[in-house]
Amino acid sequence: MEARGIHHVGVAVEDLDGALDTYRRFFGASLEQRETLESQGVEAAAVRVGEGRVELLAALGDDTPVGRFLAKRGPGMHHVAYDVADIRGALDELAAEGAELIDEEPRPGLYGMQVAFVHPESVHGVLVELVSGG
Amino acid sequence: MEARGIHHVGVAVEDLDGALDTYRRFFGASLEQRETLESQGVEAAAVRVGEGRVELLAALGDDTPVGRFLAKRGPGMHHVAYDVADIRGALDELAAEGAELIDEEPRPGLYGMQVAFVHPESVHGVLVELVSGG
Repeated sequence: MEARGIHHVGVAVEDLDGALDTYRRFFGASLEQRETLESQGVEAAAVRVGEGRVELLAALGDDTPVGRFLAKRGPGMHHVAYDVADIRGALDELAAEGAELIDEEPRPGLYGMQVAFVHPESVHGVLVELVSGG
Repeated sequence: MEARGIHHVGVAVEDLDGALDTYRRFFGASLEQRETLESQGVEAAAVRVGEGRVELLAALGDDTPVGRFLAKRGPGMHHVAYDVADIRGALDELAAEGAELIDEEPRPGLYGMQVAFVHPESVHGVLVELVSGG
């Protein structure tokens, strides 16, 4: 599978507005999109840092994926998302290479994207997201 | 300060050759540079994933920054590096914004780059590296 590049770095935060302010002041970041995804228990803000993108993720409650991450590890880097042209093909190729897929099929993500996650146990401790259509 | 983009995502690994193999097979990564930096106690391999870059970091011993990170948190995402045009100016601007700098002056990093780190306490739990000349 050939990823086209890093779509974004996902970061779990306790305070979404505070993090937005920090990224603006420190790195000249600009808000690209902000969205609440109730089904995932997350409020997200995508910011551009130059040509790069960081996705700031705040939990809607403790019993959500990001809430559990924050309780266990505290705020910090959460995942790396790679941009792929063909997400279904990419999942097939990863499965053939022995990757443990969290999502065997693409599912709707933030901002109308199709996404799928790969288990960190397969990728040396890094939670990987595949993104297409972003 | 205006970062130009994400220079790389730094990942701490237990097994550098194994990680290189995984990134090649899963994401079509290609090795860009590999270098041991004894002064930092690290062996690093930069790989390109499409237009993105991941820096895989293995510790040369337990009592090194990456060795301590691995002992505490296990393998996984270690830092995000932003590409800046003027690293000294960027450090001055960050200090003026209240960022806690690990390196108040740029220092030699991997592959001939000038680098400086910003404390994760200042950036919502994310260890940030500034890179210029890479």
